[in-house]
Amino acid sequence: MRFHGYFRSSSAYRCRIAFNLKGVEYDFTSVHLRKDGGQQKTPGYRALNPQALVPTLEEGDLRLTQSLAIIEWLDEVKPGPKLLPDDAGLRAQVRAFAQVIACDVHPLQNLRVLDYLKAEFGADQAALDAWCGRWIHDGLAACEALLAARPESEFCFGGTPGLADICLIPQVFSAARFKVDISDLTRVSRITQTCNALPAFADAHPKNQPDWEA
Amino acid sequence: MRFHGYFRSSSAYRCRIAFNLKGVEYDFTSVHLRKDGGQQKTPGYRALNPQALVPTLEEGDLRLTQSLAIIEWLDEVKPGPKLLPDDAGLRAQVRAFAQVIACDVHPLQNLRVLDYLKAEFGADQAALDAWCGRWIHDGLAACEALLAARPESEFCFGGTPGLADICLIPQVFSAARFKVDISDLTRVSRITQTCNALPAFADAHPKNQPDWEA
Repeated sequence: MRFHGYFRSSSAYRCRIAFNLKGVEYDFTSVHLRKDGGQQKTPGYRALNPQALVPTLEEGDLRLTQSLAIIEWLDEVKPGPKLLPDDAGLRAQVRAFAQVIACDVHPLQNLRVLDYLKAEFGADQAALDAWCGRWIHDGLAACEALLAARPESEFCFGGTPGLADICLIPQVFSAARFKVDISDLTRVSRITQTCNALPAFADAHPKNQPDWEA
Repeated sequence: MRFHGYFRSSSAYRCRIAFNLKGVEYDFTSVHLRKDGGQQKTPGYRALNPQALVPTLEEGDLRLTQSLAIIEWLDEVKPGPKLLPDDAGLRAQVRAFAQVIACDVHPLQNLRVLDYLKAEFGADQAALDAWCGRWIHDGLAACEALLAARPESEFCFGGTPGLADICLIPQVFSAARFKVDISDLTRVSRITQTCNALPAFADAHPKNQPDWEA
């Protein structure tokens, strides 16, 4: 299994946590989003991933893109602890939580979007930080409200880490990167501490990747 | 089962197609995104959906948000034709196709995002159309490439409509709304015609909803 990713990508970070939780080994290819005009834009990489985005997973003839699709596939075909619950209603709530982040937060702070705001709207760093801050705080506040509607638990949805935690932690990392204050989100903050104390999450952190750059 | 939606919302449109394909009946509550300062922002609706976005589905005590989570739940618990394939690899490719649209296209053209671009970056209609055009064409071109890597088929992934088609058709509707030329995307265009000829898709069209406004 070969995984094409980039240390700072939230989507790749999600997949790394999932690999670690499942205990799945993989070979890694770094796709540097800022070198060579963006290595994700080469014809070779576009043949794997026509969106020219990371991550991509290859196993045999199968090529998979989109982090949530990759993680559900891993969960369905690989042994190891389940990342989604068995109950259909709860599973739908876990997926919805994950999609709050993967649909309505992360794509708005993607490199290509920030580049567009700079080039076409003349956005400076302060404007970019405000833009990211708006969507990140709104999204994580919605996550906090979804959690608050449930009984207290160690992880987002119960006593073991799963898809919701896998999406939450990289988004909290991005919040810090864009200097977004989320200290008002107490459940999110507590669960983040719990997750980051686990090797599966800590080893997946951008700073622990072979392509890390300060 | 009660469905809270809005005629023009892509995410609600997806769910309507899924309801129709599954043959599921539901009661409808219109959440008008532009009336009363946005009916999605009322405390009552936020209690159902902390993101203040449509759609929301209620069945008994279960409250579900996020269209893809709602559609997978419907597919798992309701009778009727399956909207996702049985094979895990193919299912992952269908989910990835859906997520290209639901994560990387649609959230960028959402009302709240366009409002932000107007208010904070002074974007006029031409600038908004260019913004939407960039993400819609990029995303649908990636969809076309994903389809082109597969054998010809009547629908996106085989001989029956499913999750990929459910996401594609509302996005093509939005492309027209934002005057995005996608005539170069031949498979997308052909599948759109095929889908729109089916009652399940035609009945779900925004103009056939009780809250439709020209």
